Amino acid sequence: MDQQTVLTKIALNAWQIQTDRATKFINESSDELLLKEIAPGKNRGIYLMGHLIAIHDALPEILGFGKKAYPDLGAIFITAPDKTIDKIPTVSELRDMWASVHDRLKNEFSKMPAEKWFTRHESMTDADFEKDPARNKLSVLVTRTNHLAYHFGQLRLLK
Amino acid sequence: MDQQTVLTKIALNAWQIQTDRATKFINESSDELLLKEIAPGKNRGIYLMGHLIAIHDALPEILGFGKKAYPDLGAIFITAPDKTIDKIPTVSELRDMWASVHDRLKNEFSKMPAEKWFTRHESMTDADFEKDPARNKLSVLVTRTNHLAYHFGQLRLLK
Repeated sequence: MDQQTVLTKIALNAWQIQTDRATKFINESSDELLLKEIAPGKNRGIYLMGHLIAIHDALPEILGFGKKAYPDLGAIFITAPDKTIDKIPTVSELRDMWASVHDRLKNEFSKMPAEKWFTRHESMTDADFEKDPARNKLSVLVTRTNHLAYHFGQLRLLK
Repeated sequence: MDQQTVLTKIALNAWQIQTDRATKFINESSDELLLKEIAPGKNRGIYLMGHLIAIHDALPEILGFGKKAYPDLGAIFITAPDKTIDKIPTVSELRDMWASVHDRLKNEFSKMPAEKWFTRHESMTDADFEKDPARNKLSVLVTRTNHLAYHFGQLRLLK
């Protein structure tokens, strides 16, 4: 196994472990539970769920394999704080989006050649990339995996 | 920059970002705040702080550059749940240990040649490593970074 493949495998394993844990947690949680705040006065489960979907739905654009499937989610679950917008998707709608976004990523990641992870991500220029080749597609995946772990640690408090 | 160096840099950057954020949070938090539960009935800040110190203090053994500095912490902050042991270190003592453990890691990581990260970690055999070369020292670092992000997401709820 060459170095690129080994490294890509480590990062993809870590992503998949976190994603699978979060998916299992959400599938085993009732709508009622996900509508609760993770701690008094803090974000609700539904907001964190929507937030993660919105962030992960943007990955195809940054990694260069397509457009967002749910471009309206960002305004609700990234820009706006929780409990400031009246009309948001239901937990049931978010469950479908969660499955769809993560299935798409799993499918695309499985087809992505190892060397492509080492190319620049789409939101930076060639010149910047030359200065810092560590800012590649794989670094985006590593950052998003930590972001997911961070919020999953919070979601888990619902149980 | 070769692939090994690029990848090691991504993983080390991610570790350092999470560590720096957690250190800043702890330094800016009062002892009183860290003695609170992160949510009603859940772990206290002091427990999560001790838990992270204990896990990170074991890294030198797994990565092959030394022994644990605080071998007694595991029984208090890993094996035992929070609020089950009467005599635990004070927040002030844990602050010193936090700084010492993370300074040591930063120093050792800065000296570690990139290729060493791609060797097997110390808790697995050569035969297992041959079967799965992705289970190397770098994969341990990636896993611990996600573990840190997970608990840091919880610690942040204290604020």
